Amino acid sequence: MSRRRQVYEGKAKVLYEGPEPGTLIQYFKDDATAFNNQKKGVITGKGVLNNRISEYLMIKLGEVGIPTHFIRRVNMREQLIKEVEIIPIEVVVRNVAAGSIAQRFKLEEGTPLPRSIVEYYYKSDELGDPMVTEEHITAFGWATYQEIDEILNLALRINDFLSGLFTGIGLRLIDFKVEFGRLWEDEDMRIVLADEISPDNCRLWDARTNEKLDKDRFRRDLGNVQEAYAEIARRLGILPEAGPRDLKGPETMQ
Amino acid sequence: MSRRRQVYEGKAKVLYEGPEPGTLIQYFKDDATAFNNQKKGVITGKGVLNNRISEYLMIKLGEVGIPTHFIRRVNMREQLIKEVEIIPIEVVVRNVAAGSIAQRFKLEEGTPLPRSIVEYYYKSDELGDPMVTEEHITAFGWATYQEIDEILNLALRINDFLSGLFTGIGLRLIDFKVEFGRLWEDEDMRIVLADEISPDNCRLWDARTNEKLDKDRFRRDLGNVQEAYAEIARRLGILPEAGPRDLKGPETMQ
Repeated sequence: MSRRRQVYEGKAKVLYEGPEPGTLIQYFKDDATAFNNQKKGVITGKGVLNNRISEYLMIKLGEVGIPTHFIRRVNMREQLIKEVEIIPIEVVVRNVAAGSIAQRFKLEEGTPLPRSIVEYYYKSDELGDPMVTEEHITAFGWATYQEIDEILNLALRINDFLSGLFTGIGLRLIDFKVEFGRLWEDEDMRIVLADEISPDNCRLWDARTNEKLDKDRFRRDLGNVQEAYAEIARRLGILPEAGPRDLKGPETMQ
Repeated sequence: MSRRRQVYEGKAKVLYEGPEPGTLIQYFKDDATAFNNQKKGVITGKGVLNNRISEYLMIKLGEVGIPTHFIRRVNMREQLIKEVEIIPIEVVVRNVAAGSIAQRFKLEEGTPLPRSIVEYYYKSDELGDPMVTEEHITAFGWATYQEIDEILNLALRINDFLSGLFTGIGLRLIDFKVEFGRLWEDEDMRIVLADEISPDNCRLWDARTNEKLDKDRFRRDLGNVQEAYAEIARRLGILPEAGPRDLKGPETMQ
């Protein structure tokens, strides 16, 4: 592998310069963090699984007209994406009370919300990703009203599609977090889905048993974290043929 | 004073049944609390001053077309108000960074915000008044989108008017909190300004020295709390003729 210029390193991914201008290579690490970085760990094989799961979901979302940054997967841990200007807002869509909303409003975890609720958090490790509203987003210039409208519409469409998809494979989509970016093409700008969609940022419960099959297994020390991620991939029909035993695999390979 | 039925007791006020159906007596206490009730104290004369200040501001706001619950002041500590159905949302309008927004975004206190920012907090002592968005407000049924629109418009108009008024008397309106209620008249419902407007829920700084003349003097143990409230009343031209020495006064008097 030739040396590549690293553009950005996040908690779970690294971005490298891509082969052509306007492209990036997104590398999925096995590192896991929670509670604003206070808990750290490694989930062996997570990067391989999330690369596959996110590839699958981005392709399927693209097929129903949700624009995404995804171009193609290039190996077990890497995918080629379009370079976008990330909007520094984490968009959370919640269908069922879990995590911080359950604490904030003293709701029992698992209580269906009266309707889907969209929340925005300002991406800032230093500030602990505070919840923000359209007021803060527009006043501080993180996005325009028009962009927020577009983001809200896309987030709700993604929720509808993914809720259906996961229902079909015996899972409940409790909530999820997505990020969006501005994609510039000549003079035109479009908002596209960026980052990843995986059990790192979706809460997915087994529809029959309510067993958690997502990052909460790591956050709450429930064990069998890698197995849960693999189970999601298995139900999506995309578990790499090699099987979970080989998920560690080489870092970059064709 | 004959016995009256107490309808509600809050941290700084008591509501009694009014003389006619659809009216209430709002009694202003000297009690002060801060930090979600963790700090408690008494500011002698505060009730008398806030009754006068809120009367004055509600009347002036009414004159520019902001509907309020205020009918008339009846004595030093009491005012007659229309009974409304309180919307359980604290509406905060901020012009300059101070208090929780300064902490949340690590802004230096006193930094003018890029533009006025409106925030909503769910009124719940048990939950610590969490910040909420239109999403939570509408999903949990605390208010409708139409009501939020009306509330937002009223809050911004109140901010404009009060900013002007306080500028005129050498004060900076840093931020303030207001509450609204549903006023039913036959079949019609209107949103009206309720609760009170006073140095208990406005941050007011001297325009020249930036001296704090509001409840932050109590929150932060800056001393001269009553004197600050009296200074606001004095600049508004409404200090009771008796002068601050007599502010303790009888509890209810004509």
